Amino acid sequence: MIRLNELSAVDAAKKLATREVSAEQYLRACLERIDEREQEVRAFAFINREGALARARQLDAGPVLGPLHGLTLGIKDVFDTFDMPTQGGSKAFEDYRPIQDAGCIAYARKMGAIILGKTVTAELATFPANETRNPLNLAHSPGGSSSGSAAAVADFMVAAATGSQQFGSLIRPAGYCGVVAYKPTYNLVPKRGVWANSDSCDTVGVLARTVPDVALVTSAMIEFPGLRAFVERTDDVPAPKIGLCRSYQWDKCDAHMKAAFEAAGGTLAAAGAKVTEVTLPERFRGMADAQSLVSNFEMSRGFSDVVSRFGDKLRKPLYDRSVAGLKITGEDYQRAQKLGRECRQIFSDVLGDCDVMLTPAATGEAPKGIEYTGDPIMNGVWSFLHTPCVSVNGGYGPNGLPLGMQVVGRLDDDARTLACAHWIHRHLGR
Amino acid sequence: MIRLNELSAVDAAKKLATREVSAEQYLRACLERIDEREQEVRAFAFINREGALARARQLDAGPVLGPLHGLTLGIKDVFDTFDMPTQGGSKAFEDYRPIQDAGCIAYARKMGAIILGKTVTAELATFPANETRNPLNLAHSPGGSSSGSAAAVADFMVAAATGSQQFGSLIRPAGYCGVVAYKPTYNLVPKRGVWANSDSCDTVGVLARTVPDVALVTSAMIEFPGLRAFVERTDDVPAPKIGLCRSYQWDKCDAHMKAAFEAAGGTLAAAGAKVTEVTLPERFRGMADAQSLVSNFEMSRGFSDVVSRFGDKLRKPLYDRSVAGLKITGEDYQRAQKLGRECRQIFSDVLGDCDVMLTPAATGEAPKGIEYTGDPIMNGVWSFLHTPCVSVNGGYGPNGLPLGMQVVGRLDDDARTLACAHWIHRHLGR
Repeated sequence: MIRLNELSAVDAAKKLATREVSAEQYLRACLERIDEREQEVRAFAFINREGALARARQLDAGPVLGPLHGLTLGIKDVFDTFDMPTQGGSKAFEDYRPIQDAGCIAYARKMGAIILGKTVTAELATFPANETRNPLNLAHSPGGSSSGSAAAVADFMVAAATGSQQFGSLIRPAGYCGVVAYKPTYNLVPKRGVWANSDSCDTVGVLARTVPDVALVTSAMIEFPGLRAFVERTDDVPAPKIGLCRSYQWDKCDAHMKAAFEAAGGTLAAAGAKVTEVTLPERFRGMADAQSLVSNFEMSRGFSDVVSRFGDKLRKPLYDRSVAGLKITGEDYQRAQKLGRECRQIFSDVLGDCDVMLTPAATGEAPKGIEYTGDPIMNGVWSFLHTPCVSVNGGYGPNGLPLGMQVVGRLDDDARTLACAHWIHRHLGR
Repeated sequence: MIRLNELSAVDAAKKLATREVSAEQYLRACLERIDEREQEVRAFAFINREGALARARQLDAGPVLGPLHGLTLGIKDVFDTFDMPTQGGSKAFEDYRPIQDAGCIAYARKMGAIILGKTVTAELATFPANETRNPLNLAHSPGGSSSGSAAAVADFMVAAATGSQQFGSLIRPAGYCGVVAYKPTYNLVPKRGVWANSDSCDTVGVLARTVPDVALVTSAMIEFPGLRAFVERTDDVPAPKIGLCRSYQWDKCDAHMKAAFEAAGGTLAAAGAKVTEVTLPERFRGMADAQSLVSNFEMSRGFSDVVSRFGDKLRKPLYDRSVAGLKITGEDYQRAQKLGRECRQIFSDVLGDCDVMLTPAATGEAPKGIEYTGDPIMNGVWSFLHTPCVSVNGGYGPNGLPLGMQVVGRLDDDARTLACAHWIHRHLGR
């Protein structure tokens, strides 16, 4: 029999709303899983055991609060929470306790969620890795920077978790851990109370084990029921028109990823999707560099206080990158922003009659060792383009680890992108 | 003889860099002005007297740190500062002390600035007014939400001040107080450590008494010297091509503003500018409503914690607006975002061969009484359009108070917009 903590968020939410399962029962199943596995996986920077239990009992004693009633969430440790530390995976912020919740977290609580704890992030949601391991193979990285969120979800410790992406911090770890991440259209989920790196790329999102799950949690966090409308009519989602996109980063993918991607196209076509090829116009060639330049320009300016007053507590590669970014000129930054605007403007036409695009979520399987969270090169363009992206598993590599694919939709077309991603996920076999 | 605190930031910076004037001398002139006037003007939420004096002495004893060496800045009280309270003009955050500086503030310090204090903001940088009065006529509002920043600059208490704009919080108070505000292209100045209201509209900017002053301070805060390049060659700025834009909000302006705007066009043409009319395409008609909708959608979600845990400390109109915003649907929000993207896309063509546009900064003079900070209706479109805007004084109304005009440039075209605004400001007579 399936254990309660292994239920999808959608299924668990149903049982919790009807009181078939109590919030305390459900929470205890999650805590049991954490007790079994956390010492090895290290997904959490802080576990809110007592607070979560008190909250569960409160929920059981009161009315159903909303669509997240009793669901357990892991919160990436760069989201402020008023009742637990927020340390950003950095020695610079050890034991820091904010006075407020991030806006999206407060709303998740209002909708009934139980905040089970803070999940490990790579340092300040950038690249220096922390202690988390890939639950599918402890010798491998879970990816980053939303490392703990991806691992906790993949290991059935929580129903869902929050994450954020500047380069590839949502989609890549989800790909490495075989779970679903949803990066909404830029700014759809409010950033108030989420630590900023690059205002032009930072996007808040959600990780879970199915597409309906990320839709459920995100829609509840921002009071946008339309995002999860497709969940109620799962079997009605028509076969989508999918554009396979190799992108200008295709050569960075290893042979296993390339093969899995080609196979995915075949599988989806055989399942009834109209599958075509999408070629990005020439000007997209510069987008990966432009994203990196814009991100590093903004991060270097935004991190001024961290560098000047906490610099000795930052790991050297992050310190060095923050300082080096100051050499990027404003003129180069504005040129890169201009390219970003142009590509955003034409992207809908690039998709043609396709509903969504499919492109690799990472260059291959999760890297061996936990020092390196992997290359975000397959993600930066989409972060900068501001489009909704959903990662779904698309196969397995030579180490038996997942090979993630990402479904990319049009700006503001989140509901359709999620519905298509759900169809794709089901037909790729999860 | 002009008092030190009355110097422009550019002139003061020169004297400070050459040590013709010491940082302590300059600071004391500012403090003297504050002693004379602050009891009536109420520009400051916190005055950093001892900290500023210690800092000035340090600056005098050491090397010249950067282009802001010894300049006094007022910091809007929604920018985090590690060494003074940040209260956001709200009872919900009385005596709150962040552990970090906002990124742009830390960089200003690195460039030699003296943070003289925190300036009064309307509640949480929205609309309920606080105690500041218009220094040009104490019976009138200074505008808001950057109320204290505009008043402190207009009253010669500081060389410059920071501000932020969601609807019209930089440009409008500058217009009412007869000073210059610069709202850069969206995201140019990092928002890390600046309290968020609406991620899609919030923009950080600077207020001062001249256009070269805002260029100097902003360029130093983000290490972008190109923004102030025109300052060195003041007399070389060629006469710009200016498009007069009455906009779809023109009817909201009173007769005095309308007359001043028409007169400004004549003055600029007589001074050698090529002045034409710019008509906004039909689809701009919906932009003011779209901005308001997007802002209120995002603010209502982002303010979830403020509303749920501090709601009883918010003033009722703000509480009510935050709750009402939750009724805005995601579908309407996405439609409004789509319109914003479309208008951003065509705006450069709308300008045609004009370098910049001129349009009223407010509907008229500063309102009488300090309970109401005035109507931001002339500003919301440009906040949502993400374009650089510079407010300059364009005349005086029946109460002898300023009638501000705003210079609007193309996205990412900040350097040219500032140079043109400087030319316009000089020829409108300041």
